[in-house]
Amino acid sequence: MFFASDNAGIAHPAIMEALTRANTGYAMPYGADAIMDEVRAQIRDIFEAPEAAVYLVATGTAANSLALATYCQPYQTVFCSPVAHIHEDECNAPEFYSGGAKLTLVGDAPKMTPEALKAAIEGEETRGVHGPQRGPLSITQVTERGTVYSVAEIKALSEIAKSYGLPVHLDGARFANALEALGCTPAEMTWKSGVDVVSFGGTKNGCMGVEAVIFFDPEKAWEFELRRKRGAHLFSKHRYLSAQMQAYLQDDLWRDNARKANANCARLTAGLRDAGVTFLHDPQANIIFCAFPRASHQRLHDAGALYYVWSGSLEGDDPDELLEARLVCDWSISDEEIDRFIDLVKPA
Amino acid sequence: MFFASDNAGIAHPAIMEALTRANTGYAMPYGADAIMDEVRAQIRDIFEAPEAAVYLVATGTAANSLALATYCQPYQTVFCSPVAHIHEDECNAPEFYSGGAKLTLVGDAPKMTPEALKAAIEGEETRGVHGPQRGPLSITQVTERGTVYSVAEIKALSEIAKSYGLPVHLDGARFANALEALGCTPAEMTWKSGVDVVSFGGTKNGCMGVEAVIFFDPEKAWEFELRRKRGAHLFSKHRYLSAQMQAYLQDDLWRDNARKANANCARLTAGLRDAGVTFLHDPQANIIFCAFPRASHQRLHDAGALYYVWSGSLEGDDPDELLEARLVCDWSISDEEIDRFIDLVKPA
Amino acid sequence: MFFASDNAGIAHPAIMEALTRANTGYAMPYGADAIMDEVRAQIRDIFEAPEAAVYLVATGTAANSLALATYCQPYQTVFCSPVAHIHEDECNAPEFYSGGAKLTLVGDAPKMTPEALKAAIEGEETRGVHGPQRGPLSITQVTERGTVYSVAEIKALSEIAKSYGLPVHLDGARFANALEALGCTPAEMTWKSGVDVVSFGGTKNGCMGVEAVIFFDPEKAWEFELRRKRGAHLFSKHRYLSAQMQAYLQDDLWRDNARKANANCARLTAGLRDAGVTFLHDPQANIIFCAFPRASHQRLHDAGALYYVWSGSLEGDDPDELLEARLVCDWSISDEEIDRFIDLVKPA
Amino acid sequence: MFFASDNAGIAHPAIMEALTRANTGYAMPYGADAIMDEVRAQIRDIFEAPEAAVYLVATGTAANSLALATYCQPYQTVFCSPVAHIHEDECNAPEFYSGGAKLTLVGDAPKMTPEALKAAIEGEETRGVHGPQRGPLSITQVTERGTVYSVAEIKALSEIAKSYGLPVHLDGARFANALEALGCTPAEMTWKSGVDVVSFGGTKNGCMGVEAVIFFDPEKAWEFELRRKRGAHLFSKHRYLSAQMQAYLQDDLWRDNARKANANCARLTAGLRDAGVTFLHDPQANIIFCAFPRASHQRLHDAGALYYVWSGSLEGDDPDELLEARLVCDWSISDEEIDRFIDLVKPA
Repeated sequence: MFFASDNAGIAHPAIMEALTRANTGYAMPYGADAIMDEVRAQIRDIFEAPEAAVYLVATGTAANSLALATYCQPYQTVFCSPVAHIHEDECNAPEFYSGGAKLTLVGDAPKMTPEALKAAIEGEETRGVHGPQRGPLSITQVTERGTVYSVAEIKALSEIAKSYGLPVHLDGARFANALEALGCTPAEMTWKSGVDVVSFGGTKNGCMGVEAVIFFDPEKAWEFELRRKRGAHLFSKHRYLSAQMQAYLQDDLWRDNARKANANCARLTAGLRDAGVTFLHDPQANIIFCAFPRASHQRLHDAGALYYVWSGSLEGDDPDELLEARLVCDWSISDEEIDRFIDLVKPA
Repeated sequence: MFFASDNAGIAHPAIMEALTRANTGYAMPYGADAIMDEVRAQIRDIFEAPEAAVYLVATGTAANSLALATYCQPYQTVFCSPVAHIHEDECNAPEFYSGGAKLTLVGDAPKMTPEALKAAIEGEETRGVHGPQRGPLSITQVTERGTVYSVAEIKALSEIAKSYGLPVHLDGARFANALEALGCTPAEMTWKSGVDVVSFGGTKNGCMGVEAVIFFDPEKAWEFELRRKRGAHLFSKHRYLSAQMQAYLQDDLWRDNARKANANCARLTAGLRDAGVTFLHDPQANIIFCAFPRASHQRLHDAGALYYVWSGSLEGDDPDELLEARLVCDWSISDEEIDRFIDLVKPA
Repeated sequence: MFFASDNAGIAHPAIMEALTRANTGYAMPYGADAIMDEVRAQIRDIFEAPEAAVYLVATGTAANSLALATYCQPYQTVFCSPVAHIHEDECNAPEFYSGGAKLTLVGDAPKMTPEALKAAIEGEETRGVHGPQRGPLSITQVTERGTVYSVAEIKALSEIAKSYGLPVHLDGARFANALEALGCTPAEMTWKSGVDVVSFGGTKNGCMGVEAVIFFDPEKAWEFELRRKRGAHLFSKHRYLSAQMQAYLQDDLWRDNARKANANCARLTAGLRDAGVTFLHDPQANIIFCAFPRASHQRLHDAGALYYVWSGSLEGDDPDELLEARLVCDWSISDEEIDRFIDLVKPA
Repeated sequence: MFFASDNAGIAHPAIMEALTRANTGYAMPYGADAIMDEVRAQIRDIFEAPEAAVYLVATGTAANSLALATYCQPYQTVFCSPVAHIHEDECNAPEFYSGGAKLTLVGDAPKMTPEALKAAIEGEETRGVHGPQRGPLSITQVTERGTVYSVAEIKALSEIAKSYGLPVHLDGARFANALEALGCTPAEMTWKSGVDVVSFGGTKNGCMGVEAVIFFDPEKAWEFELRRKRGAHLFSKHRYLSAQMQAYLQDDLWRDNARKANANCARLTAGLRDAGVTFLHDPQANIIFCAFPRASHQRLHDAGALYYVWSGSLEGDDPDELLEARLVCDWSISDEEIDRFIDLVKPA
């Protein structure tokens, strides 16, 4: 019963097979391998973006930080949510990669509203040379609270950013999960909605460790390549990144995995709802934030369930006190585990 | 006939098997996986260093830059060879990770002499606060020209660094090849000779993409962890780094691969010597720098041999003009390929 | 009628005389001038801190950024008010000088409360290596809204910082104004209350351009000197910084100027209060935030008064609408100007 | 007898008078003062560059680092002489301000040759994304060894830089001294010879502390302003920088001071030559590198002469051993001091 994160499960067998398949003969290093050509073609095709520049790195933080650094000057500020991964979980990597830019936290909610974004942008550059200058907008999709921006919402945020001439980055660590939730096309969720650069996640959805960075305007491509190398994120034996991404995109594996993860989450959500659990956010993809009594947490804990107790502590006298939990479903969780988890939550 | 680099061959089958073996069930992310515990124990054992702090990253540049940044203040300078990988081939990564430190190039040769090092150190800090301050020494072993420092030579360099209170980093991208060449112990080549931190390479010697950073004094361990995360080099699905390194160190795979690579190089060297080829440096591990006539290069080229023409150009009128070549042997090259290469070099 | 800032008035005649006096013969450059020895002794004496390390720079932003960088690692975060000068008015200088640290905004008010500080500190380092680590606390005294921390308030904030092992920086761009407001000693307002390093302002209080950075623990002194040089803030003809600070501290000029500025502010406050003006913050030193009708603003504007309209716009239909103003008094403003300003605010 | 540097003498009386003159009434801060408008017009006029963007900072290192950072990406390298001030005497400030760029040292001599520059440029970007990319050329005029590039030499270097698309920076800490030595116009020594940005020194030639940064192409102006602020080099009471520069440029003060300094140097050179002194470089402006016997050094030392003994030590047995000296003449040195110095050098 592992619901702690989608970064701790196995790589999908198809990914492993692809690695084995790739493991023959010599391959040109540093991204010049033939499999990377396939990956580039796949992504351009999937995104309906024949000019897109496509790069691979091994971590989501690298994808985000390098993509943002390419679009953010050190005297600018990135607009993001207060719960954005780039703000909370990257140990100042965006500040590091950008050479000392700032992050401006927009609004209170995990999902930015256009109003809050507009207010935040208006709040900067009120002091001429003295304050930070306005820089890129960064949206996380799926958000860090498990909700999903609609295409219209992304468009509305992008339009505000564009009206100030600001570029738009989408942190798509869970891109596939969002796409499945929305039922739109990759193009609709990105460049057709004003997104300039995407961190396209593979790691959390069945890969071993690979993320794509996709620039719809290739103008920044060479700068990105230099920043990737300088950041020590250019792999010599790059074919093993390529092979993962190639297999991930082939035969809809990425979509199947995401569909399965979302379905797992829906099953868990339904069961918890039946069990009377309170939801802090509407689970729209594969992450749940909810609250249930300490006694349930203790039963789960004793049974070996792994997940984050988001607020409060298992230790405590009151068995009825509600403690918050974050539950993440990956594609590999079985119905049995989900159902067992639900059973353990239910009042004894 | 691939002699371009040791970063383009396959991963050893044992590495692939280890990855497959590791690909089961959930594993704690970010280096808390059980396999990492094994790796730590293996390295402490191999290095006779029970207190060593051990970390994994995926690229050699990450290992070097993060290790150096941990020991180098932004107002200091790193002492290294003019042909050091950290100077020539990392696109300013050490400058980036250190926050703007400088590199002071020591002497003219690929192998630093104690005299040149002493002179370089003495040449800094002659201007009080105005010039850069003295920072770490970084040695590459095997050097970028295929030679190997003896244990006595490392000791002599370290002693000079230590006499100024400077820490010592060893870029061991080809650590195993050097060890086989010297026939000493890992401890002798490192901490017993004054080395404080090692970039211990796996990628060039049969792994897919993994390098260890080993601190013999764990005092800097936590800072390194923060710098690794901030640099986006902390893997969530870390077990796949651990699994590679675990298999690499088990049953002497790392030493067997290196021994094979060095033997391949020795076979190639002997054959080239018989063919009258001139050597620019004494090939002591698995890299050869040599010169032979354009006509030979052209024959090799036509036969599909891949390697770097280090000086001059295949295009040219004089078939007898000597052009330099860099030839790198990995563990996987066959005797047949080597012999065929030699035959092609020989005068027609 | 200049109330726009205390950075636009003249230098006090005594400062000019000191510069002229210093302008004779050769003086050792880069801080080795004899006048700097006097300054060091003066500050150690005034602060009752015989071990203090004392340095001069020419801008407040340099003082703040260099002081913070000395105490803040790039993977840490600085705790400060949302209206802190270091956050709003330094174009990411703290992020730049620290090598990419973050700023965590504490509470909503210009004056931090101990509760808000504690909550902010507790909010960081909840994610191990993933989030930024806790770094220094930075307090501005006088605050950017014209209020003043009591000695007890500084102590309370410092105690919280210290309980987490965090250093404390005081941005004293208006140090003298605060001191006069409180009637305490410099030692009480700083090291006796737990402050580790002070940006001690001269520029806004009668100097031409000089700020001292005072480390009560000299352990960081050499690092600061290197960071100052590397930041290009070490003056060759340093005597002209020294001469300003020497004259500023001599015969209580610094306190006299501040007393005059505060008195000017008190006179203005009293007059505005009589005129029925609303105050947004309690003016405790030399800065006023208040609101009065557009018609009054227009009269002031027509008469050539200079100050910041903090919210709203002079353009508008409603003469009665309240617009906010920031009014700063320096030592050189005459009673006549103040009274004239008040008269213009009053309803026609 | 002060020949240690031209950074330790007094400010010219006209500079002091200008400061006093400027010290009246309120002036708009941060470079919006009226005197700055005069300065801008003066410099545009002097340089025959009506579009030039002109900024003031207080130190030469700030001028150099900010100018270079504006033209140098962090993944690039600056081409400069091994004895360049930016390399030897700025404690990694260029690396800091550029966000981690490298400096490539060109040739062996204080004056770069076009051949050495071409070889250095060709030596970079041979490794694609792996090595640093080619960045700006930086020339020091007067060089750090007291020699002066002719206009033709600057042109030849610039042409090479331009042929690779690289911008050209001129570190003119002693701009006026070079101009007097050459007898050309400021335009000829700069933009007519391909220079894009100049650090135009005032401090070493009679000012208190002011340097101009002049961009002949104003495209980078706003970025420079942001970098200056972020670097904490934007002065609030900016008029005192403006006033210095205004007076410096008025009535040819800058040229008169330089002419006097060069004449002082010529007198000293002639006297030393008569005294049989050996010159290490040809003194073309106001700096001499020469060698004379230890006994002479000892006489000078005993008489209180101040200058750098560039090699060797006053302590030593052999009174005839030649020790090197660096002697710098500013505008304020008297003929008597020069002659006395010469007398003391002469054999007893």
